[in-house]
Amino acid sequence: MNTFGTIFRLTTFGESHGSAIGGVVDGMPAGITIDEDFIRSEMARRRPGQSALVTPRKEADEVELLSGIFEGRSTGAPIGFVIRNTDTRSGDYSEAQRWYRPSHADYTYDQKYGFRDYRGGGRASARETAVRVVGGALAKMVLRERGISVEARLKQVGCETTPEGMEALIQQVKSEGDSIGGIVGCTITGCPIGLGEPVYGKLHAALGAAMLSINACHGFDYGAGFNGVGMRGSEQNDTFVRRADGTIGTATNHSGGIQGGISNGEPITFRVLFKPTPTVLRAQQTVDSEGNEGVLTMKGRHDPCVAVRAVPVVEAMAAMTVLDYYLMYRATSGF
Amino acid sequence: MNTFGTIFRLTTFGESHGSAIGGVVDGMPAGITIDEDFIRSEMARRRPGQSALVTPRKEADEVELLSGIFEGRSTGAPIGFVIRNTDTRSGDYSEAQRWYRPSHADYTYDQKYGFRDYRGGGRASARETAVRVVGGALAKMVLRERGISVEARLKQVGCETTPEGMEALIQQVKSEGDSIGGIVGCTITGCPIGLGEPVYGKLHAALGAAMLSINACHGFDYGAGFNGVGMRGSEQNDTFVRRADGTIGTATNHSGGIQGGISNGEPITFRVLFKPTPTVLRAQQTVDSEGNEGVLTMKGRHDPCVAVRAVPVVEAMAAMTVLDYYLMYRATSGF
Amino acid sequence: MNTFGTIFRLTTFGESHGSAIGGVVDGMPAGITIDEDFIRSEMARRRPGQSALVTPRKEADEVELLSGIFEGRSTGAPIGFVIRNTDTRSGDYSEAQRWYRPSHADYTYDQKYGFRDYRGGGRASARETAVRVVGGALAKMVLRERGISVEARLKQVGCETTPEGMEALIQQVKSEGDSIGGIVGCTITGCPIGLGEPVYGKLHAALGAAMLSINACHGFDYGAGFNGVGMRGSEQNDTFVRRADGTIGTATNHSGGIQGGISNGEPITFRVLFKPTPTVLRAQQTVDSEGNEGVLTMKGRHDPCVAVRAVPVVEAMAAMTVLDYYLMYRATSGF
Amino acid sequence: MNTFGTIFRLTTFGESHGSAIGGVVDGMPAGITIDEDFIRSEMARRRPGQSALVTPRKEADEVELLSGIFEGRSTGAPIGFVIRNTDTRSGDYSEAQRWYRPSHADYTYDQKYGFRDYRGGGRASARETAVRVVGGALAKMVLRERGISVEARLKQVGCETTPEGMEALIQQVKSEGDSIGGIVGCTITGCPIGLGEPVYGKLHAALGAAMLSINACHGFDYGAGFNGVGMRGSEQNDTFVRRADGTIGTATNHSGGIQGGISNGEPITFRVLFKPTPTVLRAQQTVDSEGNEGVLTMKGRHDPCVAVRAVPVVEAMAAMTVLDYYLMYRATSGF
Repeated sequence: MNTFGTIFRLTTFGESHGSAIGGVVDGMPAGITIDEDFIRSEMARRRPGQSALVTPRKEADEVELLSGIFEGRSTGAPIGFVIRNTDTRSGDYSEAQRWYRPSHADYTYDQKYGFRDYRGGGRASARETAVRVVGGALAKMVLRERGISVEARLKQVGCETTPEGMEALIQQVKSEGDSIGGIVGCTITGCPIGLGEPVYGKLHAALGAAMLSINACHGFDYGAGFNGVGMRGSEQNDTFVRRADGTIGTATNHSGGIQGGISNGEPITFRVLFKPTPTVLRAQQTVDSEGNEGVLTMKGRHDPCVAVRAVPVVEAMAAMTVLDYYLMYRATSGF
Repeated sequence: MNTFGTIFRLTTFGESHGSAIGGVVDGMPAGITIDEDFIRSEMARRRPGQSALVTPRKEADEVELLSGIFEGRSTGAPIGFVIRNTDTRSGDYSEAQRWYRPSHADYTYDQKYGFRDYRGGGRASARETAVRVVGGALAKMVLRERGISVEARLKQVGCETTPEGMEALIQQVKSEGDSIGGIVGCTITGCPIGLGEPVYGKLHAALGAAMLSINACHGFDYGAGFNGVGMRGSEQNDTFVRRADGTIGTATNHSGGIQGGISNGEPITFRVLFKPTPTVLRAQQTVDSEGNEGVLTMKGRHDPCVAVRAVPVVEAMAAMTVLDYYLMYRATSGF
Repeated sequence: MNTFGTIFRLTTFGESHGSAIGGVVDGMPAGITIDEDFIRSEMARRRPGQSALVTPRKEADEVELLSGIFEGRSTGAPIGFVIRNTDTRSGDYSEAQRWYRPSHADYTYDQKYGFRDYRGGGRASARETAVRVVGGALAKMVLRERGISVEARLKQVGCETTPEGMEALIQQVKSEGDSIGGIVGCTITGCPIGLGEPVYGKLHAALGAAMLSINACHGFDYGAGFNGVGMRGSEQNDTFVRRADGTIGTATNHSGGIQGGISNGEPITFRVLFKPTPTVLRAQQTVDSEGNEGVLTMKGRHDPCVAVRAVPVVEAMAAMTVLDYYLMYRATSGF
Repeated sequence: MNTFGTIFRLTTFGESHGSAIGGVVDGMPAGITIDEDFIRSEMARRRPGQSALVTPRKEADEVELLSGIFEGRSTGAPIGFVIRNTDTRSGDYSEAQRWYRPSHADYTYDQKYGFRDYRGGGRASARETAVRVVGGALAKMVLRERGISVEARLKQVGCETTPEGMEALIQQVKSEGDSIGGIVGCTITGCPIGLGEPVYGKLHAALGAAMLSINACHGFDYGAGFNGVGMRGSEQNDTFVRRADGTIGTATNHSGGIQGGISNGEPITFRVLFKPTPTVLRAQQTVDSEGNEGVLTMKGRHDPCVAVRAVPVVEAMAAMTVLDYYLMYRATSGF
């Protein structure tokens, strides 16, 4: 299933070391001004090779938009696009052809499909997330016209929660050839009341599925989340208040902006957990496809903390999810 | 969207205080022996009124199977079923007709739909989960023929993790008219290697969406999860080993049985966080539908810790998810 | 796949000789007044036993609505309903248990599922269409508030196209214990311009799939259709004209109200072909499940021309399709 | 909705006069040898400019496969591909920018989306069918390994049914600057018994929807179809016989290989009606977007009978449909 969404839909294709990756955005409303500079700037946020904290692999990430746009605006037709792969030093991965990299998808792909594209991560590579960023940028163009904004940021690396602590820890694990997990927080503001569909289409369930589909994501919570497990109901409940302008709101927001699966007008807040990337530059026990045991030592480029670069991907998935639910909401609301 | 699943699908209907709830299971393979006693025993595990720890509301929960079964076996046709609502003391809820209960779905439903069934939780009531248990029981009948089992248990209540501590805490919050959250852990064993679909159909993303659709669920993680955030990649990676019987496995299971979104043959493990139920028997600030502020004090029955009764619901959703993915896997594997 | 539709969805269950048939309507907009008398009158139109032209089988067809309605209006929650089967003289079908009835679904169901419910047509029985009529009645309640109406009528029986000719032919084939096919025409008026989705979601493709899902339907065309195969493009093209009121219309309607898969504001017209029901009261060559050849002579009740009773079913499917597309149209239009 | 299929899925994008068209095939089983020459030969069958009977527009139709293939075989990952548009003489269409071409999609697109890509047919152009042929070629590669073949041919042009008569009629209407409709027949052989899903997923309903999604298609029937409307049930029923090899078959095939919506092992036969292409080189009354009446005379290239070039498109859609249903069948059969 390489399609995400119900009405606003992104279908993606491509492997890390094939000729190109790309996608098709379907359900884009017509008449939206397409801001190509914005797509470029979003891509730049995700791109590797930008700082000492991320993988030095360079990706030009030129997005070629092929359809669905006429005279600078969306036509309502699907927007197809491709991003060519340029810097694919496949030589780095020769050992991986034989040995299964621990906690990667090598073994499961081989078992599921009978063989695999062993150059890089193939379809399971985080390279695919570049395509999500394009989809997210298009979704954001629609959302910002409606006053809805999505903003994610790195909240935690290992057990560090301050900017300095997080950076120092990343530098340290990098120097050790190791990796570390992290947590990205995301807030959506300006969302109208009423997004989300009972029972299986709860807004937070859709956001959770979206986030859990991102490479290396191992957890999701919203509102008070796991940190609120010790609270009593009387503490965690968000009491309703009448605001000075006459609107109704909640005094606290432990619900994370969602009640009964439906947005309540407060900021939507959730957290996304990323495990340490399994690529570490250290000797690891493993087996090959024949079952022989051995030791694999990966070399070359690696991301010490994938949560850093996941920030714009979290935003992209959130933007597409909210737009999709916004379109669904339009379908049946206000009769 | 009141349908769950892609090939094995459960569609549900019904409100807590209407005449009945029920559902339709589609995609049930033909020829499976239908064990009605097993359905009854699964329903009994979820039923309220069983102990001091849960709501005293009594539900007979008689499941009437209406179709899709002939001479004791599934025919491949959809299995429709209804469960009559019997013990619906709607008088208890008269105050809720006017006041929005904090952190319930009253306000969001009113805003989304223009009005709501104010008797109990309406469609947002946890009563709906009884239907999921029926769907899960049917899924388990198929899975157990394949050697796949699903088992959930209560792992934590508030910050308590021992049986005695959890029980004592529940009794205490109950006596206070308050409520408390909890964590349910679930393990799936016997799952073949290869379940899960890249990229948006990762097995853990589907499990996460399934769990997050359960009432009061506020978080999900799998494998090492949030507790592993401090681990290095070199620690968290699951090294591959050759077992005595020649098969390949992993020395540890921080991946929770899923790598690259695909089951790897190890036990699948995940956690599901439930917030404290918002129904507390204490005075709470709130507003009515006109925006007048006031105080609401709910009376009557309440569940001090919904995580207790969520255990069979977690199992049911997990069973349906795994069966759905198992059927998808059959569609394209082994060419 | 026992679900029809994308946003407005009907999921059905039940066999002709089980305890009940029924369904779940999901995506019903909230706030629609539910007219139960109208459901009854629609059911009455389809019911057998009403005249000499149709099967004398009597079905009480009492529809019990179980959910999704509160104080006479739809709540936005799914509407579950059941219709009990009452007049199920299973004795009539004893021969069919052994012999495959020619051009029925007996053989294919046995092959697909390994066994079948041999009482009546099981899941393949036209009894299932009663559930569609309920779904259609609910859809019509929404459509009529928007000024959209759906009207079908019998246009042809065998080669007869006049009322008298059609009736006489049906009487004749009935007296012969035989059956005959027919064509139902349908017109949808008041439909706004813009319903239909390129490329695979063309409005006429959706209508065609809806009609072809009805039992015994063997063909579908719209606008000029098969009868226009001899026309030149210059004759068949619908030239645009400016009407007295300033609106744009077409001088003719060979397009059947749909151009490029999208409604153009003219009446939508299509035809639905029904083959002769395969139940005939004559000796027929056949085989049993072991492959033994033999002769089967069915007795009892039969519909000499199923097209007669298909008229309200055609309307129901058309109403649900148009409403579904209307809701989709609302999702993305007018940005 | 620019996606076709449930498990084997084709998502397409592109306009006739944009930079490229293309698509993504998802659900391709892994391990299938990809025959690029076969794709080229299928594309050649559809390509315009090949004979006096079709439009002289030349399309190089070079298909660039971008992903999902490794060492000559499908990997199970999605296959993305693009086809560049090269010969796009947009000057020919300048008149169409102002005037709505009768029976084209110009008017409905403008109304639905607020504006349109007026260069050629935009998204509604038959150019899009080139992408379907690629999807169909991939589907055929899987089907032929299973012994399933799909073959379509032109059966009728206007009222002519002989090769000579059809060719002469096309030449005549072409010389008149006019166009004519036609009928394509298609036969699928080697299909296993059991494809098709009750109730809304009947195999012929899926085939009908697939065909009706092709540009200019106005009708579909299968088996005896509209031509059998005068037959009695006793004539049209396909009696079962035991064949010399012990298998069960039917003496006739008026059911078109499908009974109860499920394939019965006989050849699957259906017909697809194409209206005359609306592009005629003659003066036609029309209006512009402001509602002014006027006369439009199109010039340049046109297809006198689109049914000719639709033959490989019919095959492609049939192949994708059958493969999709074959994969669904694998999901639940044989438990």
